[in-house]
Amino acid sequence: MALVVQKFGGSSVSDAASIKRVAKRIAEAKRAGNDVCVVVSAMGDTTDELLDLARDITPLPPQREMDILLTAGERISMSLLAMAITNLGVKAKSFTGQQAGVITDAVHGKARIVDVVPSRVRETLEKGSVAIVAGFQGVNPESNDVTTLGRGGSDTTAVALAAGLGADVCEIYTDVDGVFTADPRIVPSASRIDRISYEEMLEMAASGAKVLVLRCVEYARRYDVPIHVRSSFSGHPGTLVMNSDHALPAVPGLLTTPENYTLDATEAQTMEAPIISGVAHDRSEAKVTVVDVPDVPGSAARIFEAIAASGVDIDMIVQNVSAVSTGLTDISVTLPAEQAPTAAKALEALRPELTYGSLQIDDQIGKLSLIGAGMRSNPGVSAKFFGALRDANINIEMITTSEIRISVITRADSLDEAVRAVHTAFELDTEAEAVVYAGTGR
Amino acid sequence: MALVVQKFGGSSVSDAASIKRVAKRIAEAKRAGNDVCVVVSAMGDTTDELLDLARDITPLPPQREMDILLTAGERISMSLLAMAITNLGVKAKSFTGQQAGVITDAVHGKARIVDVVPSRVRETLEKGSVAIVAGFQGVNPESNDVTTLGRGGSDTTAVALAAGLGADVCEIYTDVDGVFTADPRIVPSASRIDRISYEEMLEMAASGAKVLVLRCVEYARRYDVPIHVRSSFSGHPGTLVMNSDHALPAVPGLLTTPENYTLDATEAQTMEAPIISGVAHDRSEAKVTVVDVPDVPGSAARIFEAIAASGVDIDMIVQNVSAVSTGLTDISVTLPAEQAPTAAKALEALRPELTYGSLQIDDQIGKLSLIGAGMRSNPGVSAKFFGALRDANINIEMITTSEIRISVITRADSLDEAVRAVHTAFELDTEAEAVVYAGTGR
Repeated sequence: MALVVQKFGGSSVSDAASIKRVAKRIAEAKRAGNDVCVVVSAMGDTTDELLDLARDITPLPPQREMDILLTAGERISMSLLAMAITNLGVKAKSFTGQQAGVITDAVHGKARIVDVVPSRVRETLEKGSVAIVAGFQGVNPESNDVTTLGRGGSDTTAVALAAGLGADVCEIYTDVDGVFTADPRIVPSASRIDRISYEEMLEMAASGAKVLVLRCVEYARRYDVPIHVRSSFSGHPGTLVMNSDHALPAVPGLLTTPENYTLDATEAQTMEAPIISGVAHDRSEAKVTVVDVPDVPGSAARIFEAIAASGVDIDMIVQNVSAVSTGLTDISVTLPAEQAPTAAKALEALRPELTYGSLQIDDQIGKLSLIGAGMRSNPGVSAKFFGALRDANINIEMITTSEIRISVITRADSLDEAVRAVHTAFELDTEAEAVVYAGTGR
Repeated sequence: MALVVQKFGGSSVSDAASIKRVAKRIAEAKRAGNDVCVVVSAMGDTTDELLDLARDITPLPPQREMDILLTAGERISMSLLAMAITNLGVKAKSFTGQQAGVITDAVHGKARIVDVVPSRVRETLEKGSVAIVAGFQGVNPESNDVTTLGRGGSDTTAVALAAGLGADVCEIYTDVDGVFTADPRIVPSASRIDRISYEEMLEMAASGAKVLVLRCVEYARRYDVPIHVRSSFSGHPGTLVMNSDHALPAVPGLLTTPENYTLDATEAQTMEAPIISGVAHDRSEAKVTVVDVPDVPGSAARIFEAIAASGVDIDMIVQNVSAVSTGLTDISVTLPAEQAPTAAKALEALRPELTYGSLQIDDQIGKLSLIGAGMRSNPGVSAKFFGALRDANINIEMITTSEIRISVITRADSLDEAVRAVHTAFELDTEAEAVVYAGTGR
């Protein structure tokens, strides 16, 4: 008998009808002979509505109370889902994050999971019931207060529970059929990836692929939890995110075509050819450039110390070669666009001391990344990559690379074209059009 | 320094504006030098909306899940209220029933409070914060599951917390200025009662006065907690419900005119004159009559055993004198109208065994009760009572009495007139019109 953790996001449980549909799916998994633990987010727009209510009350709500408020959303969805499953003749019980033993640190609003002690969930599964667990929340054991996990919290809850329960697989249900070689909304000929390693998935997520958040993949990688990303709107197989040395999860009735997953990626990897996973893009960053910085030791350090102290997360960094005649250089960074004003303020404060020329903020940039194993040792990959961008007449503003990724910054309005050009150059296009279902996965 | 428990119902916190208004009131009580613990219900229609959602999912929701669903309502109101108070510069923290130590039995949907261990609330008050507690909910310590208390649950939570904390007074905020000598919607000249004993308040509540539920008054009486029923829409003093031997609560800034409460009722009681508290009415009952019951020992017992076994609560019982010629009698009971079909079913099942004539159900009845101390020992009271009804040409169908109450059943459509006639006869009318504020208190 297999143990499956299934996670359904807000768009999968947006109203009574969709809750019933999800319940049917869960009941089928249970009847197929699996132990089933379900992690569920708040219904559709509930979280936004609660945020609006709080904003009507005060501009600065205490984070502890904000967490109490927001966790009401999962309380509603989890109990309704348990009712719907019970109504189908399958036993089900719902649990808050606290009851499910999701232990976090004390950081309200973006707590991190420090431990999972799912004894009540395990007991419930052993009694033959489906266990429904509220996503996105946990408890700080010192204060006994509820905490929320922040963005991607429900996915992370699901993976953490799967790890804590020793589940065979963690299924993340979303509004697409899995992880694609590019965003199907930009590249209609993008194809679903059957199987991808944690490392490549991490690079995809960090490069803007929205289907899984970074922390969830990091957690899965650390505890070696196979993730199956699939659609809650279709019965199609999705994308398996797992280590190549991990046995394929044996889950009766859930992987309709297991032969899909046995698997070009590992085979090919042994042959040391580069395996391109896909093309990711990100439109959420801005570029901040400090112009005419004195090119003396310590300038860069002071800039990055100032940005770090302001709590801003930097992505890419580029320093141009200094002009010999002036002894001045430019330093550019990319960072989340909404943090650009904070970074700018920190850098302005530095100006009297550092005596740089000017500050430029550009939020009309796009980032394109190519992800794949064996890239570094295959110089042909970057040649093909830059060739494709040149042929499409795309101007490149910044470049960074890692072991399994090349990223470039382009103008925001040429990003789509760049994605399509690279996708085609690496022969990732398929005949079939990718299907995007309604809503947005969370 | 006084310790005050304040309870606000759903109509007092129906939207962001009213939550801010209530927060202001709480902040004033705190700034006047009191320790303040607040019990709050779910916002306005939240509970009904959640019930609708559950009904869309399944006709028979499991009670455990229903309680999880419904308690989301208080989670929302309590956190928003804590935010609003914090925004006024007063520290506030919210607590679920479980966190506040409200321990109940295991009966989901209508749990009873078995203990209150408010250590976290006390700690919060000692640190100078306002403590907000979710009404209507507690925890079953054996299963660690959340429970709801059923009708009047938030009032009962407030009184139980006041008892557990040793509060000086429990203020129940509602949509009227207090307890009135009759329902001001029927008798516009009704006057507010300054002070009333637990016993009389129990009779008022049992007789249909909706401002406080029975179980809340019972709890207050058992633990000798003074209740102050007052309006959340005005600053007027309300009605004190407390024992006559209890000292008036000394609550700075909260009883604007304490001289109101020192007090005709006790003074007069020593003079042994009857003190009429007021006239209550109830339109929610039905009358069930078993016609032509054999007048032999055990007939009545079998009828009441059958009704009790069906879980129906009986209010009044009347058995007419048996007709000598037939040896048959009629037995009538009143009970909540919605339970009449259940009682009728139980009695029909009894028919072959008991061989009674027929069963009559009448839901067009009204109950009128006159409540006051010293009634039994003053025969003039009942003479005046029945005289007033006769003069108003009201037909009386059933009569019951207690030490401090006379109740009669009339036709439903003559109930209002009967209430006015009795209210006038006992000189309870005042010049000023009573004010009824918007909404309905819970």
